[in-house]
Amino acid sequence: MADEVVLLDTYYSMFGMRVRIALAEKGVEYEYREQNLVNKSPVLLEMNPVHKKIPVLIHNGKPICESLIIVQYIDEVYEAGRRVWSTKGEQQEAAKKDLLEALKLLEAELGDKPYFGGDNFGFLDVALIPFYSWFHAYETCGNFSIEEHCPKLIEWAKRCMEKQTVSKSLADPNKVYDFVLVLKKRHGIE
Amino acid sequence: MADEVVLLDTYYSMFGMRVRIALAEKGVEYEYREQNLVNKSPVLLEMNPVHKKIPVLIHNGKPICESLIIVQYIDEVYEAGRRVWSTKGEQQEAAKKDLLEALKLLEAELGDKPYFGGDNFGFLDVALIPFYSWFHAYETCGNFSIEEHCPKLIEWAKRCMEKQTVSKSLADPNKVYDFVLVLKKRHGIE
Repeated sequence: MADEVVLLDTYYSMFGMRVRIALAEKGVEYEYREQNLVNKSPVLLEMNPVHKKIPVLIHNGKPICESLIIVQYIDEVYEAGRRVWSTKGEQQEAAKKDLLEALKLLEAELGDKPYFGGDNFGFLDVALIPFYSWFHAYETCGNFSIEEHCPKLIEWAKRCMEKQTVSKSLADPNKVYDFVLVLKKRHGIE
Repeated sequence: MADEVVLLDTYYSMFGMRVRIALAEKGVEYEYREQNLVNKSPVLLEMNPVHKKIPVLIHNGKPICESLIIVQYIDEVYEAGRRVWSTKGEQQEAAKKDLLEALKLLEAELGDKPYFGGDNFGFLDVALIPFYSWFHAYETCGNFSIEEHCPKLIEWAKRCMEKQTVSKSLADPNKVYDFVLVLKKRHGIE
């Protein structure tokens, strides 16, 4: 059976264009399905239930993430993480929800692979692992456990930390938390 | 003479940690210089005059950008570009300035190479070129010329557009502009 590749996308999306170029460069044939973001299609809701965002790439019925899409979700971890420590009340609850959703999507993409690129530590692992040093600060400020929601992602992080190149490069989580307390004070956040 | 590599960084920066891991993975020895972002050092201002931000990597006295730093600047192009069409007056002028500064930094990093990765079209080119289809909308909304400030970057974009994988994947700049007019109307921006 030939592979069936479908791209749910919108014409004007720069993130979609990245994936279109990557697929063209690899010579992958695919069916392009333009999405209406105001009135979202059932297939979009089914294939990307977490974010309901484009682009979504579907390979033989299973949604997959191109590395260029993953980079976009990594940015969302950064944004949501910052809001977890810098806001309170409803805003903070929303930030925790956003953070966990982005992390769950990354965890789903990781699947049962040891690293994001597969068997070897690669570009995406380098891009994402620094956030791990901030998890303790997010969890303490937000009074929640990331591991409870994303156990496989934490396993991945611990696997990365076994590499000296990683463990020696990352900040100490306790020092990051102390730094966040300084930032909160400086910005007048209780 | 041995290569001299210096990293201007702050301990808590996730962007800095990425570069530290990448350098460690490549086995590059370097001098680490912790920066005070409240009271910036002369060397930081000299080596990153555009953004005055960390991390900065200096190789034999010349500042260079790791691909993981470049990805960060690409995100800034996205952010600033959005503000160019969605704001007016002083906010728009600030957005134009931010956009041109990010683009100039990318142009400086491109240098005389045909592509960001060197002789071949690669990951960073794929990540950046989609913005080119939005340049016409930014320029028309902001009444300015990107080519006037970044001629080499435009040469690079035209070089990328000679590839069918790119030209067939990107949106038509005129259609993007029409779409921006729809967005402005929908958001109540004159």
